[in-house]
Amino acid sequence: MNAVISVDLPQNSYEVAIAPGSLSQLGAWLQPLGLGRKLMLVSNPMIFRRYGEGAIASLEAAGFDVCHALIPAGERYKTLGSIQKLYDVALAHRLERSSAVVALGGGVVGDMAGFAAATWLRGIRFVQVPTSLLAMVDASIGGKTGVNHPHGKNLIGAFHQPRLVLIDPEVLATLPPREFRAGMAEVIKYGVIWDADLFQQLEQAKRLDQQRYVSPELMQTILTRSCQAKAHVVSKDEKEAGLRAILNYGHTIGHAVESLTGYKLVNHGEAVGIGMVAAGAIALQLNLWDADSNRRQTALIQKAGLPTRLPAGLDLEDIIATLQTDKKVKAGQVRFILPTQIGTVIETDQATPAVIRKVLLAMAEAA
Amino acid sequence: MNAVISVDLPQNSYEVAIAPGSLSQLGAWLQPLGLGRKLMLVSNPMIFRRYGEGAIASLEAAGFDVCHALIPAGERYKTLGSIQKLYDVALAHRLERSSAVVALGGGVVGDMAGFAAATWLRGIRFVQVPTSLLAMVDASIGGKTGVNHPHGKNLIGAFHQPRLVLIDPEVLATLPPREFRAGMAEVIKYGVIWDADLFQQLEQAKRLDQQRYVSPELMQTILTRSCQAKAHVVSKDEKEAGLRAILNYGHTIGHAVESLTGYKLVNHGEAVGIGMVAAGAIALQLNLWDADSNRRQTALIQKAGLPTRLPAGLDLEDIIATLQTDKKVKAGQVRFILPTQIGTVIETDQATPAVIRKVLLAMAEAA
Repeated sequence: MNAVISVDLPQNSYEVAIAPGSLSQLGAWLQPLGLGRKLMLVSNPMIFRRYGEGAIASLEAAGFDVCHALIPAGERYKTLGSIQKLYDVALAHRLERSSAVVALGGGVVGDMAGFAAATWLRGIRFVQVPTSLLAMVDASIGGKTGVNHPHGKNLIGAFHQPRLVLIDPEVLATLPPREFRAGMAEVIKYGVIWDADLFQQLEQAKRLDQQRYVSPELMQTILTRSCQAKAHVVSKDEKEAGLRAILNYGHTIGHAVESLTGYKLVNHGEAVGIGMVAAGAIALQLNLWDADSNRRQTALIQKAGLPTRLPAGLDLEDIIATLQTDKKVKAGQVRFILPTQIGTVIETDQATPAVIRKVLLAMAEAA
Repeated sequence: MNAVISVDLPQNSYEVAIAPGSLSQLGAWLQPLGLGRKLMLVSNPMIFRRYGEGAIASLEAAGFDVCHALIPAGERYKTLGSIQKLYDVALAHRLERSSAVVALGGGVVGDMAGFAAATWLRGIRFVQVPTSLLAMVDASIGGKTGVNHPHGKNLIGAFHQPRLVLIDPEVLATLPPREFRAGMAEVIKYGVIWDADLFQQLEQAKRLDQQRYVSPELMQTILTRSCQAKAHVVSKDEKEAGLRAILNYGHTIGHAVESLTGYKLVNHGEAVGIGMVAAGAIALQLNLWDADSNRRQTALIQKAGLPTRLPAGLDLEDIIATLQTDKKVKAGQVRFILPTQIGTVIETDQATPAVIRKVLLAMAEAA
């Protein structure tokens, strides 16, 4: 039961295919795309150890000439220095303009492989083969690529759409539980910002904190509906001029928390979970939504095994100062995406530093 | 007598304005563009010493909040490391998505400022204020941005169109003669690939090797017609899928020469001059054009004070090997732009290594 979702854009439309077992047929999936013969497969050591040999064998069987480059796992390696290594491999393998980059891994691999593809020879094609839930439902779709600046996440990057996103749900069986939960944060986000019915289905599940407790049917629903939500929003707003901002729900404070903990203590999904709890509480303070909706959101985030409080030792004023470096700042005013009910959000600059401070203080004190 | 030339693109059309004295009114020129208040001016120390204060005063008088970043002059500083410094200034000044980058300088400054703009917050706007002849007639128009890889020129980059190109011919009076001649190489290129009448006007000039020997009228013709040629080609082929390849006339061997001399001994225009002489000789070998046309081209390149021979000590086999890393390689075959008459070129892969070797050998031996 493959699902295929279209990302419709003025130029460079593409498909997201959710196809069990597809990783072992990677070469056949890439064959119809009209790519050149040379490919650079980008991965991290752990994913490559598990899936690399099979992926390369499948690509070579389909006639591709494949080199590979490995980047250590983790947000802290998402740097220009890692990109430089990808360039070196691209040069050594003499990638041409017709060549393509294949990202086999999580969001970090996809973001960097995509940025290298966006900037090698002023842009060559690339294919996303996400192996984490987070990358499947979010990072791999929409063409955001880039790396972190030492003082801010994703400040360096480019929009560069993939030619195909190929999702094999079977690889989730080997995903570490903590990474599975991180992906669930984005899934819950789609429920809050877009799809109240998905939210309710998640509420009805007994457990969401590990992949093995989630039925294959619910997993299929999660992947399909999350990708549909992302694809729809991206189709309407490729370059983040308007609607796409709603995808940043939970990310404003989330990014600050990630940045201030050095991308080490808290992973991206956990930071988004914390950010959504904060955004829900800010919305409650501003009377944008009701206490019951806020409680339901917090409960679902908890059920997914995600943190709902600030990590110990974070200085609230540091968070507030860091918000000023957020990409969504306009004329110095931080703009938040805040929910008005489960399934609907708005963008607003009503959240004053005083309100933010009050909410963060409560999230720091709660124990 | 301002000239305004349109670069018409599906998205992001813009104008090239050739306006004497415009640098001192930079702020007024930028005001109608709808940019945000924050600007980052990028320049090199020499240009900034001469024009920086006036430019910033003009921008501030127009209400802009300006920071600046200086990059040492020279192709060898066109690196990711320099871009990192631009990012640092962008972060310190808290550039927002509505902010813009202003490139005040030659091609190196424009390429790097443009690449920083293309990749900061996944793309902010930028304005080109070229101060060298080379940047005025070529590099500033068309949206090619990027840096060099240690082993190849312009391998890293992005297409990112400027919002405006503002050319003040008066600044050419302070351009060092060697840089003026480098720009003349690109001007001659437009004559050969596109504009036989421009070529003839250049032939009729007494001297072309220094700006002070060129009449203001001819200078106006040179700037206007060169920018028209470039704008026309870019309008037809924004992403270098077809026609735009003709702009690479003289650049295939030129890039190899630049790269092998470490971007030090030979500047870009000189390398293009050498590359055009080589391309002309290859065209003659292949009977694509006649000996008289070839002689006229060489004579014009010489009149502009440009080298027509290979720098001493270059290994011909190194040049041939380096051609394989050229962006125009398709399936391992080097594609050359070659002239069929003054004003017309074609793209071909007929140039065998044997022919290239013969031509380069003659250019190395000639004395």
